[in-house]
Amino acid sequence: MHTSFNPTVRTLMGPGPSDVNPRILTAMSKPTIGHLDPDFIRLMDEIKSLLQLAFQTENQLTIPVSAPGSAGMETCFVNLVEPGDKVVICQNGVFGSRMAENVTRQGGEVIAVENEWGRAIDPAKVEEALKANPDAKILAFVHAETSTGAYSDAATLCKLAKQYDCLTIVDCVTSLGGINVTIDEWGADAVYSGTQKCLSCAPGLSPISFSQGAVDAVKARRHPVTSWFLDLNLVMGYWGEGQTRAYHHTAPVNALYGLHEALVILAEEGLENSWQRHMTNHLALRAGLEALGLSFIVPEDERLPQLNAVTIPDGVDEGAVRKQLLQQFNLEIGAGLGALAGKVWRIGLMGYASNPKNVMLCVNALESVLGQYNAHINKGEATAAVAAAYAG
Amino acid sequence: MHTSFNPTVRTLMGPGPSDVNPRILTAMSKPTIGHLDPDFIRLMDEIKSLLQLAFQTENQLTIPVSAPGSAGMETCFVNLVEPGDKVVICQNGVFGSRMAENVTRQGGEVIAVENEWGRAIDPAKVEEALKANPDAKILAFVHAETSTGAYSDAATLCKLAKQYDCLTIVDCVTSLGGINVTIDEWGADAVYSGTQKCLSCAPGLSPISFSQGAVDAVKARRHPVTSWFLDLNLVMGYWGEGQTRAYHHTAPVNALYGLHEALVILAEEGLENSWQRHMTNHLALRAGLEALGLSFIVPEDERLPQLNAVTIPDGVDEGAVRKQLLQQFNLEIGAGLGALAGKVWRIGLMGYASNPKNVMLCVNALESVLGQYNAHINKGEATAAVAAAYAG
Repeated sequence: MHTSFNPTVRTLMGPGPSDVNPRILTAMSKPTIGHLDPDFIRLMDEIKSLLQLAFQTENQLTIPVSAPGSAGMETCFVNLVEPGDKVVICQNGVFGSRMAENVTRQGGEVIAVENEWGRAIDPAKVEEALKANPDAKILAFVHAETSTGAYSDAATLCKLAKQYDCLTIVDCVTSLGGINVTIDEWGADAVYSGTQKCLSCAPGLSPISFSQGAVDAVKARRHPVTSWFLDLNLVMGYWGEGQTRAYHHTAPVNALYGLHEALVILAEEGLENSWQRHMTNHLALRAGLEALGLSFIVPEDERLPQLNAVTIPDGVDEGAVRKQLLQQFNLEIGAGLGALAGKVWRIGLMGYASNPKNVMLCVNALESVLGQYNAHINKGEATAAVAAAYAG
Repeated sequence: MHTSFNPTVRTLMGPGPSDVNPRILTAMSKPTIGHLDPDFIRLMDEIKSLLQLAFQTENQLTIPVSAPGSAGMETCFVNLVEPGDKVVICQNGVFGSRMAENVTRQGGEVIAVENEWGRAIDPAKVEEALKANPDAKILAFVHAETSTGAYSDAATLCKLAKQYDCLTIVDCVTSLGGINVTIDEWGADAVYSGTQKCLSCAPGLSPISFSQGAVDAVKARRHPVTSWFLDLNLVMGYWGEGQTRAYHHTAPVNALYGLHEALVILAEEGLENSWQRHMTNHLALRAGLEALGLSFIVPEDERLPQLNAVTIPDGVDEGAVRKQLLQQFNLEIGAGLGALAGKVWRIGLMGYASNPKNVMLCVNALESVLGQYNAHINKGEATAAVAAAYAG
């Protein structure tokens, strides 16, 4: 006979999911109500307005897609790309490549702008591509690359796109809540995020926001959207205003309870305070990691505070270290992805997980495990550096 | 300042979501772990084998899609339909029409077999269509129509499909756990379900099962699947065997805790016992509803025990009745959908919600509310009929 599942309690400092705030876990366990219940309509309205706050936007179409971040990405591409459309895609990590996959599956043409992994996107290269492709319809890029820990200058890239008459699709999966995401100020057109990064929610939903220009483009399509489930023409009818919503699909009610609570927590703290907290804990972690002899792959001024990619010291079995951290300390850190597999660790400090307790655990546990490989680690130096960083 | 959301506690007797077992709500609030954690791999393996049990199948590809039932439907169609493919679709309710939408969006051609709403699908009509379209590739039908409460003879329809060399796509959203779903015995090829019906789970996931023949068809496709998120070639790599799983998307970890617990509960009770319970409570509800003068739209031998569609008495404002049931008794029943909008109520007795307490509440509350419209209701007769039905 199968028995109930009881997960080991971990500290989640990988690239996401990150530690979930207990208030959110409790919210997800509240009694389920119907997806047409007046209470649920109120929940939807509150989520929309809380998401507008988080994204710093007045876009009406600001809603959670009922599936994980990859489906949020797909929502943007299947609704905006039509066969034959040219899409300029910036690639500086794994998620740029995934964007390209999305475009070709819709019959679009990809103009790839290659950038170094671990670096911000170079606006000069992007402008070159836009200039060379005056018929391009969309510029797509990742604001915060989860695979490398680098962020790019979204404001400049969106401005460039406008200059060359392109819509923008911007991946804010890892940035939302951790650093400034201000999509109206940027002038971004289609933005998607995830719940399991700096919102500290369980994975499973993908907040999106579409500008009026993007909505107009969806409405003016010449071909039907290939996905019925993600067709915003239908989804808008469900998430629309008032009580006259058209049934589309059954919403993931309890997951939405969780997202609502996560957004309330973010609103209580305030966006700026949340970004500052991410930075403070990042600086303390950085002090500890550097004292352990680990170095960041991203230059300081392009570095995400919530995703710390560091190189692996010579002679260290990176998989064995992660395994020991998990088994001995119940601490999860992330491996490298794609071109960086085996070359880096990715240490997340996202949302609720961005706190001194996690920083101290991580640095101290790494000191203990790495000490078994490297006699040169000065005992106590890394934790002292962390303490000093918090002392300011 | 926004505040935490606290839903009113309802009794869910609509077409789904149905009442969620408190054990499942608790399971969903357990601490989140990473989607590459060894504990999570074990969870995935257990869910696969529990789903095989629920579907009565040995299909290797038996997994939950990380999105609601509509995405499960879409998974079947985007993976099996290629441009130009002919698909015979049986229509006897809302969800058959949605299948047709899925086919045309993939560039397939729909051969519609029209059936009366509220009746089982007529195998003779299906055979006629298969005979007239020898190049049809797929036969698709809904096992249990949530919009009408009728079920069809899946074994006969699957056998017919095989005879005419067609794959089958079968919607078991409302049937799984409530009546016999035995896909290996049927010889069904691609089956999808939902979590929020007779599995008593929160909405948000869609269990699917693909036969070897269906998997072979996916692997032999001439065109890429239009959806990256739902492409089973990629999803299979993630839900595959052992520890070498390829990262695809971030799984909805806590929702999967809930599904696991729901399947454990079903295994504890036993499939036959669950079907029997659904039937027992249906018969008691039926006795009460008929004593109130309500009549079923589906003939007895085609009627689902878990979804009771009854006509609305003359002179009764159906929306006002539902509103009063909700406000005064916190009881949700369903409205009609599509062609049946305004004409029927749909009363669900699904999974955990299929219990005497709910039956008694529903009949007694309906007696109270309908009594305000119709002086001819004999007081106490309906509840006496319920009591008598349980007495056997």
